[in-house]
Amino acid sequence: MNYITNPEIIEQRSMEIIASELGDRLVQIPVEMRPLIKRIIHTTADFEYADLVSYSTDFLTKLKESLLAKSPLIADTTMVLSGINKRVLEALGVEYYCYIKDPEVVKLAKEEGITRSMAAMQLTCQRWEHPILVVGNAPTALFKLAELMNRGEASPGCVLGVPVGFVGAAESKELLKRLNLPFFTIDGRKGGSTVAASILNAVLYELRGNITP
Amino acid sequence: MNYITNPEIIEQRSMEIIASELGDRLVQIPVEMRPLIKRIIHTTADFEYADLVSYSTDFLTKLKESLLAKSPLIADTTMVLSGINKRVLEALGVEYYCYIKDPEVVKLAKEEGITRSMAAMQLTCQRWEHPILVVGNAPTALFKLAELMNRGEASPGCVLGVPVGFVGAAESKELLKRLNLPFFTIDGRKGGSTVAASILNAVLYELRGNITP
Repeated sequence: MNYITNPEIIEQRSMEIIASELGDRLVQIPVEMRPLIKRIIHTTADFEYADLVSYSTDFLTKLKESLLAKSPLIADTTMVLSGINKRVLEALGVEYYCYIKDPEVVKLAKEEGITRSMAAMQLTCQRWEHPILVVGNAPTALFKLAELMNRGEASPGCVLGVPVGFVGAAESKELLKRLNLPFFTIDGRKGGSTVAASILNAVLYELRGNITP
Repeated sequence: MNYITNPEIIEQRSMEIIASELGDRLVQIPVEMRPLIKRIIHTTADFEYADLVSYSTDFLTKLKESLLAKSPLIADTTMVLSGINKRVLEALGVEYYCYIKDPEVVKLAKEEGITRSMAAMQLTCQRWEHPILVVGNAPTALFKLAELMNRGEASPGCVLGVPVGFVGAAESKELLKRLNLPFFTIDGRKGGSTVAASILNAVLYELRGNITP
């Protein structure tokens, strides 16, 4: 059986198919956001995402600035970290963490009767001043972020918040939109760790050119 | 803002919503397969998956047998391993690996001009006799598996093959169906690492009861 085995050609051809099938819908998306949308669809094969993205106008600029300024990137799951291009991240000098298994998080969650995702968000905002926050899984992480911001205890550089799910996910993302910070989200129930990773990767691939060896 | 923070309650409520919205479609799915379908939707919030699953009638039995017999589980991406419940896997005594970064794989891919996913599949089938194969990302891994099987150089215990994508993914999964082995797949372009992990987790959660402490 004949099949393409060159990863670059596979990716290029995939992106052409996606652009072609998106057609007019792609034209309606601002040029600089198209790579993000295309990569989400590349990862999910789900064209509905083109109609579900929602973001603040300063998100992309702010995310790039934060990455180039070596702000730390904190993800809610190890799966997000697994999916992102760590070679580019490391070349940029960006540190990345997931605190979900941190002993302090486990302890805090138990003591306060909250989810580990909430405890991890609390710890993140104690440890870092303007982190890049990535939430691919836990609506409760976004709810906790809102609480911390209301108390003046959190000021993330930007938030990529795309938890997936049936209980609280959509609500947590609507809340994110009202937090007055640079954000990117997916309306409704859809999202997830691979979606979060794909959005980050789209931006990281673009920044590859900015890396000075 | 009030929100549910108990993970068990969130999950239970989510599964109720999924079952309710699937309605009659769920009834048409064999009872033992329902937890798998429900967990895919839980992970993707995409109900289309209910109509895209395809599997051999012996898949579930064979996967459970393989896990209980401590057959090794080999995934094509670290993201799949990141997403599966390793506590249950370890309690069952099942070893798990991803060879994509294995120096021997990197070398083999370079030498033969093939993708690392293909090289990893080749190495997997050299190293293990009847592994549980999980392919969440790379169609070329399934193409390579077919070649190896045709040459009598591979005899996996079962294959969970759900690569996502626009070039080769659908074809690789159609090929998987014709390999005459216990398989589970997703028709068409959809799938991915989170989908693969969700299917495995559904089975692992069921096996939790079988673990002798």
